[in-house]
Amino acid sequence: MRLVVCFLSLLAVFGPAECGNVLVWYTEGSHWINLKIVLATLIDRGHDVTVLVPDGALFVKAEESDRFSFQHFNVSTSGQGMLSVIEEFLYFSVYEMDQLNLLQIQMKFFELGSKHQDLALSYCDGILKSTELMNKLRNGKFDVILTDPMYPCSEIVAEELKVPLVYTLRFSIAHVMERMCGQIPAPPSFVPGAMSKLTDKMSFTERLLSMLFYLSQDFVVVIAWKKFDNYYTDYFGRPTSYCEMMGKADIWLIRTYWDFEFPRPFLPNFKYVGGLHCTPAKPLPVDMEEFVQNSGDDGIVVFTLGSMIDKLPKEMSNMIASALAQIPQKVLWRYGGEKPDTLGENTRIYKWIPQNDLLGHPKTRAFITHGGTNSIYEAIYHGVPMVGIPLFGDQPDNLVHMRVRGAAVVIDNIKTTQPQDLVDGLNAVINDPSYKENAMRLSRIHHDRPIKPLDEAVFWIEFVMRNKGAKHLRVEAHNLTWYQYHCLDVFAFLITVLTVVLYVFFKMCKFFIMRCCFRSKRKSKKE
Amino acid sequence: MRLVVCFLSLLAVFGPAECGNVLVWYTEGSHWINLKIVLATLIDRGHDVTVLVPDGALFVKAEESDRFSFQHFNVSTSGQGMLSVIEEFLYFSVYEMDQLNLLQIQMKFFELGSKHQDLALSYCDGILKSTELMNKLRNGKFDVILTDPMYPCSEIVAEELKVPLVYTLRFSIAHVMERMCGQIPAPPSFVPGAMSKLTDKMSFTERLLSMLFYLSQDFVVVIAWKKFDNYYTDYFGRPTSYCEMMGKADIWLIRTYWDFEFPRPFLPNFKYVGGLHCTPAKPLPVDMEEFVQNSGDDGIVVFTLGSMIDKLPKEMSNMIASALAQIPQKVLWRYGGEKPDTLGENTRIYKWIPQNDLLGHPKTRAFITHGGTNSIYEAIYHGVPMVGIPLFGDQPDNLVHMRVRGAAVVIDNIKTTQPQDLVDGLNAVINDPSYKENAMRLSRIHHDRPIKPLDEAVFWIEFVMRNKGAKHLRVEAHNLTWYQYHCLDVFAFLITVLTVVLYVFFKMCKFFIMRCCFRSKRKSKKE
Repeated sequence: MRLVVCFLSLLAVFGPAECGNVLVWYTEGSHWINLKIVLATLIDRGHDVTVLVPDGALFVKAEESDRFSFQHFNVSTSGQGMLSVIEEFLYFSVYEMDQLNLLQIQMKFFELGSKHQDLALSYCDGILKSTELMNKLRNGKFDVILTDPMYPCSEIVAEELKVPLVYTLRFSIAHVMERMCGQIPAPPSFVPGAMSKLTDKMSFTERLLSMLFYLSQDFVVVIAWKKFDNYYTDYFGRPTSYCEMMGKADIWLIRTYWDFEFPRPFLPNFKYVGGLHCTPAKPLPVDMEEFVQNSGDDGIVVFTLGSMIDKLPKEMSNMIASALAQIPQKVLWRYGGEKPDTLGENTRIYKWIPQNDLLGHPKTRAFITHGGTNSIYEAIYHGVPMVGIPLFGDQPDNLVHMRVRGAAVVIDNIKTTQPQDLVDGLNAVINDPSYKENAMRLSRIHHDRPIKPLDEAVFWIEFVMRNKGAKHLRVEAHNLTWYQYHCLDVFAFLITVLTVVLYVFFKMCKFFIMRCCFRSKRKSKKE
Repeated sequence: MRLVVCFLSLLAVFGPAECGNVLVWYTEGSHWINLKIVLATLIDRGHDVTVLVPDGALFVKAEESDRFSFQHFNVSTSGQGMLSVIEEFLYFSVYEMDQLNLLQIQMKFFELGSKHQDLALSYCDGILKSTELMNKLRNGKFDVILTDPMYPCSEIVAEELKVPLVYTLRFSIAHVMERMCGQIPAPPSFVPGAMSKLTDKMSFTERLLSMLFYLSQDFVVVIAWKKFDNYYTDYFGRPTSYCEMMGKADIWLIRTYWDFEFPRPFLPNFKYVGGLHCTPAKPLPVDMEEFVQNSGDDGIVVFTLGSMIDKLPKEMSNMIASALAQIPQKVLWRYGGEKPDTLGENTRIYKWIPQNDLLGHPKTRAFITHGGTNSIYEAIYHGVPMVGIPLFGDQPDNLVHMRVRGAAVVIDNIKTTQPQDLVDGLNAVINDPSYKENAMRLSRIHHDRPIKPLDEAVFWIEFVMRNKGAKHLRVEAHNLTWYQYHCLDVFAFLITVLTVVLYVFFKMCKFFIMRCCFRSKRKSKKE
């Protein structure tokens, strides 16, 4: 029966092919939310999908096992341990960071990064050091490993099982993974590093900052990854590195597209599939639809701060609520905290909202968002202008992309902002038609592509399964050292040759001039 | 009626869109053969297509006007004049080149290039200086200009008419146009310049050659394009250049793909649509099919030298025919010259053959080809191994791509080759299964892509028409100088700062050391 489903479903889109076995590396948070759309499609197309999940995973829920096959593994860290690392990171990013100087911030990030690495390596141990699990994987006849490189070691399993590897990645800080390991070119002059908050149009100072950002992050990462490098070297018993092993990935599915990304050079095995999770809006629950319809011509504003943040300090929630109370639109706010004292009659609080369906509702006028990529893509998909309240991670950088395209107003620091700033921001994106026009332009770019992002992602995963990799898309740069890549040895050779030639030329000139002078002197002496 | 055709045909593939007017710049030879497949598809999809053609064009035939709307223009050069430039180039490349030294070859190419430029500028004059024609174009309400940049000045008309520009290009020598004008990155260390006959795997010496090839071609082109730069500057009455104007193109449709091309960095507005002209084989004419079937298990060999060469010197044709007579396969040879004396019974000569249909025939075992891109793509499409006899232009370089992929044997110099070399080559590709396997692997890569090349080409032309350009795909590199692009000014600044800091640091160290020494000396003196 499975074979029939497989054959029919594959035939429907790309013609005949074989169904296969997909092994999915563990990931968390919004990464998992995005990834499971791809997995669901692979299952619908008849593939077997096995997801590696540690005990006590946070976002990968047990009840999802009716959809996905979970392969549990034991870790020394408890679920509570994982949660505390994430919470410490969030608390630091949102509440502490702006009270510290640059050095203190870097030190704290290094400390947090180190904790994350220990956590990540405990997952590696949980899989690689379990003989039973590894034997199970060896016998699993997998055709591909699908990984969000949020956690390492899938590269080791891919090498062990001799199975091709496909990455699904939003970004790495300063594009370190993509540049150093994936060999994607990124001239700092017009390709700003992820999280730099720079755009592709840079002044001299910005290009200087861009360059320093790249250099500093490369430096930090080379040190930080030593832990992974040692782990990989120990495992294989030969010198290797995390980056070298990452470079063996066949396909990099990047979760953005040119509606969001500044145009930049890329490589044949980098596929930009941003917005693959977006779908047309479904009808709202009845009471919600009623509330939305009551907004009349003013319409509604949708407000969420993403999957990680559903509570705010009381003074902050009060400030926001008092601002929202001043606009004529109805507001639907996803919020898990205590009801703010200043909540207006136009604002309703929900523990959960169908964000995509609300953004696709014809009454929606604006979206207040933390600027997570999944949320921004839903806004782009439905052409909704945004007011950004970035909190941590890539959110400030993401919202810069939307601001320079004229589709968003950004509140840079929610802790120091006044209610009027939020009201002004909302009034701007709702009443100045340019914001809606720009959001619609991005939406047109998003929809007007030759293949839908989800279809493209699935195509390349299946391509790798069918063809046992995609080596014909992998640039030879992977086999060059950095000085060979930039032809610095060739330059050095050419400069040496040129110097020698010039030296010999001048020496000869000098010799002949001297001889002439000497001869003429001798002549005049004789005379 | 046209609107109905348009609506239905567009709906069938990409959903609703508007039909539009396409202006096609004049091109010749195999470029026209390839381009008209795209144009026919645009017409089938309901668009109006107008092709600019000079009087006396060679490949654009009057009888094709039932398919395409031709807009004729007058040129000072006659059709015979054009032919003589092409014939001189062919004669030089095939028969004279290997008797000259490198300097003589460069001088001759410069002379031929100059003649080609004069011809090209006479086309520019024919269009731009005809008030009647320019008014016609201005009133033509064109939505896009489609250009093979074999001839210049479409950029001027695009600017004048404020119409987006789409290029369709196989390559420019050393990728000068793509690199210097299109801003595609091409590190010489693993991206060999077109026509360099290098691969992506290079030794130190090859990387040196690659670098010198790029540098020398850049130098030659900067000088050669001065003529065009002056023409463009004169036309607009402001300083500009050919390259700057080329850089405004919205999309570059490149007529290769990763089945042929070595993997390399590229840009979002570069679309690789190689092989768009290939189609499944149609049945052969009855007598030809009978001849093919008579080949039995041995099968057939297809032999053509492309659209430009259909005659060879007698001794060369005799050498080839005597080689062909020695193989057990039947041979179908497209040849317009006198029947060779040594022609075997297994070989039949045809003035014209249905090349694609023959290559797709199950009896076909090998393809003897000059290595033109259109021919190579038909061989890849049908998975036929090749024996290459490169004659001129990009053909030697093209065949290097096939040789390193193990799908072809190449006869490097047909003038010095012996019949046995050709026999050996044919026996190798027919009897060594690796050649067939490699050809089939390339064929799989060719076919296994998310969208067919012709559909992709048409999609991006229509995208540009729908959206009045594709500026969101254009990298900011276009607005940077070469030293800004490479951040050389930033490096210079950083080095200066570092030097000053170090200088001050050493001066201060010296000062303090001196003071200490001085004080201790004074102290000891006092004591």
